[in-house]
Amino acid sequence: MSAHSREIAAMDDAALNIDALMAEMGVNARAGAEALRLASAETRTAAIRGMAAAVRSRADAILAANAEDCAAGRQAGLPAAMLDRLALDPGRLEGIARALDEVAAIPDPLDTVIAEWTRPNGVHIARVRTPIGVIAMIYESRPNVTADAASLCVRSGNAAILRTGSECLRSALAIHAALEDGLAAAGLPASCVQIVPVADRAAVGAILSGLNGAIDLIVPRGGKGLVDRVKAEARAPVLGHNEGLCHIYVDASADLAKATPIVLNGKMRRVTVCQTTETLLVDRAAAERLLPPIAKALLEAGCELRGDAAARAIVPAMAPASEEDWVTEYLAAILSVAIVDGVAGAIAHIRRYGSGHTDAVVGEDAAVLDAFTRGVDSAVVVVNASPQFSDGGEFGFGAEIGVATDKLHARGPVGAEQLTTFKYLVRGAGQTRA
Amino acid sequence: MSAHSREIAAMDDAALNIDALMAEMGVNARAGAEALRLASAETRTAAIRGMAAAVRSRADAILAANAEDCAAGRQAGLPAAMLDRLALDPGRLEGIARALDEVAAIPDPLDTVIAEWTRPNGVHIARVRTPIGVIAMIYESRPNVTADAASLCVRSGNAAILRTGSECLRSALAIHAALEDGLAAAGLPASCVQIVPVADRAAVGAILSGLNGAIDLIVPRGGKGLVDRVKAEARAPVLGHNEGLCHIYVDASADLAKATPIVLNGKMRRVTVCQTTETLLVDRAAAERLLPPIAKALLEAGCELRGDAAARAIVPAMAPASEEDWVTEYLAAILSVAIVDGVAGAIAHIRRYGSGHTDAVVGEDAAVLDAFTRGVDSAVVVVNASPQFSDGGEFGFGAEIGVATDKLHARGPVGAEQLTTFKYLVRGAGQTRA
Repeated sequence: MSAHSREIAAMDDAALNIDALMAEMGVNARAGAEALRLASAETRTAAIRGMAAAVRSRADAILAANAEDCAAGRQAGLPAAMLDRLALDPGRLEGIARALDEVAAIPDPLDTVIAEWTRPNGVHIARVRTPIGVIAMIYESRPNVTADAASLCVRSGNAAILRTGSECLRSALAIHAALEDGLAAAGLPASCVQIVPVADRAAVGAILSGLNGAIDLIVPRGGKGLVDRVKAEARAPVLGHNEGLCHIYVDASADLAKATPIVLNGKMRRVTVCQTTETLLVDRAAAERLLPPIAKALLEAGCELRGDAAARAIVPAMAPASEEDWVTEYLAAILSVAIVDGVAGAIAHIRRYGSGHTDAVVGEDAAVLDAFTRGVDSAVVVVNASPQFSDGGEFGFGAEIGVATDKLHARGPVGAEQLTTFKYLVRGAGQTRA
Repeated sequence: MSAHSREIAAMDDAALNIDALMAEMGVNARAGAEALRLASAETRTAAIRGMAAAVRSRADAILAANAEDCAAGRQAGLPAAMLDRLALDPGRLEGIARALDEVAAIPDPLDTVIAEWTRPNGVHIARVRTPIGVIAMIYESRPNVTADAASLCVRSGNAAILRTGSECLRSALAIHAALEDGLAAAGLPASCVQIVPVADRAAVGAILSGLNGAIDLIVPRGGKGLVDRVKAEARAPVLGHNEGLCHIYVDASADLAKATPIVLNGKMRRVTVCQTTETLLVDRAAAERLLPPIAKALLEAGCELRGDAAARAIVPAMAPASEEDWVTEYLAAILSVAIVDGVAGAIAHIRRYGSGHTDAVVGEDAAVLDAFTRGVDSAVVVVNASPQFSDGGEFGFGAEIGVATDKLHARGPVGAEQLTTFKYLVRGAGQTRA
């Protein structure tokens, strides 16, 4: 056997091993799902509280693992923003533990009667909330997501198969050990929350195959490339969390005292979150009045502006925007600016370039607001408020694993309740159908 | 060019033409979806009423087209049950028109506020029902489904792309002409409801590709082979309507006066519908008392029984059941019978062999009923009533396009409301996020 064919054989072996490992995780996950489905709310709460406690007691090990991830990341030349998302310190780790405590405190969604009614024949029908089963999460290299995703799955009675970005694997494994402690403390098996223990990308392919039907739902989080690949290849249902290409439209009827702070907050409160505004649309009919003060506030806050020709004619301090700018999620202190012909022009721009995440209108004319809320078919449509409110915490859902940009099952912020399904319970006293 | 390569070139041409045709249907459907999304409830109601009127006024043409389908089907040697489902007569056609009238009368699901709340900062959040967009239905050769699917889509504000079984194409096209009349009468474009006008199976592949993102949801109806293929290959979300492998478990605590009519009704009321009982499970602890009278009633009603060894020891009139019988959707007057060890044995059998559609328990012991309703994770779980109630009409939903057996988005009977999604409307008075 040549060295080359030995190498290929070894690669085949590794591929086989990954597939076998993933198939076993699928079988385990079904057992975990069964245990969670039959566990009481109290047991699941105890597990999440135990996870929080174990994150605190394992702080040294987690921070040490994270230091290794960060060192490797620096050596690999990861961008500064990515290194920042990767890094933990005692404060951030306590934030992870506190987030677990918060999920433990979310009202349990299971067994809730969503609707019930009695038919004329006396048959009673109830729609009762139940877990989905096994949820596979594929996410970026952020240590907190491992804990957030696991706890939301346990809160909603679902077994989790977690696959973190490879840059974060050591941190995620150390956090996962704490999650297992929490499950054990509540008498739940480790199969309730599993993590892919290797960086091998073949694991993603295995998850997309559905693991022989073991996976009920795949939740991809991250860049458009990942989400699009998952949607194209997955043989299980997908709850996609796509990028946020979010707009604010300022209508001629807008009150400038609302518009300026809303645009400033929408763009600059936190530029790296998905609901951050990336494009400002201004009504041509009042652009001369509205744009200069808004642009001034943004420029003073350190925001780079890239405008179309009409915008630059009003505010020459803007760089020119190219077609590429309308489809770019900057996640940075950059805002593209277009002048549009009224609410119809704004709707057309958003439908053409938006990602269906969060779009906002600022205005006082009720007909304009109505046209906007009807015409824009995004998960979250905001009127006269900052689009930065578009997340689970601000909606009152507690924690979330992201903002779903698809239309099926769940849309907008995805918290514990959005990770459930339901079944119908039909109760009678011997009724038969004619 | 050889005859063979000319043939291949012609096939390629045909394939290209189908792909081009389907791509054009996708573009049209998006325009139709936009028209429906902005149309009022009254307009959509008028369209459905217009469809009913046109089905009546076009009765002769529809019946003539159907006669051609039936003649071709007889010549092709279609099975009698399939020919029966294919055939129309004036009475059945009036049934289709009446079903359209009923869908027109369903309360409009759109713009309903599903939930609303005000956050401490005064921001008001409402979850409002909206259409999904473009729904592609792939279904069997039944003329009524073309009208049912189209009207439910229009009621829920979705554009429809319909693909019927080829045996029914002439009938479906004749009915579709009536549906277009209805749309035109209400001022809606024909792009709201399109039908694939050719029998070419390549059309199914094109639909599964998602038509360049034009399709928001694929709804397959029919055999397990079709539904499984759609789930495996679709590049758009799927709402699967799988077969019904439905069980009734009769517990030792059962009241025989309820059990016998429920089993008889569950199996024999109508044997060709998906919620028909295919397997009877009887508690070993009371099988000697319960099984003989139930079996007697079934045999007298003309039902063939196939039992496991324990069941045949009690009722020797049964044929032996093979492993195949536990996974066979007979849709005929045949029932498989197994003796199980209490409710745990029943749950284990159902989880192993069931299709997650509808499963029932008959018993008086509250602990058993609770164990069954928790342990059986099917879309519809029935207690002490006939599982034949498991359909949209009996649930009070009005018309339905089927019973969904997946867990995402919708489960159980799928009517107009289940074909909607929602968006969040967030309204403020200038609030920004801290």
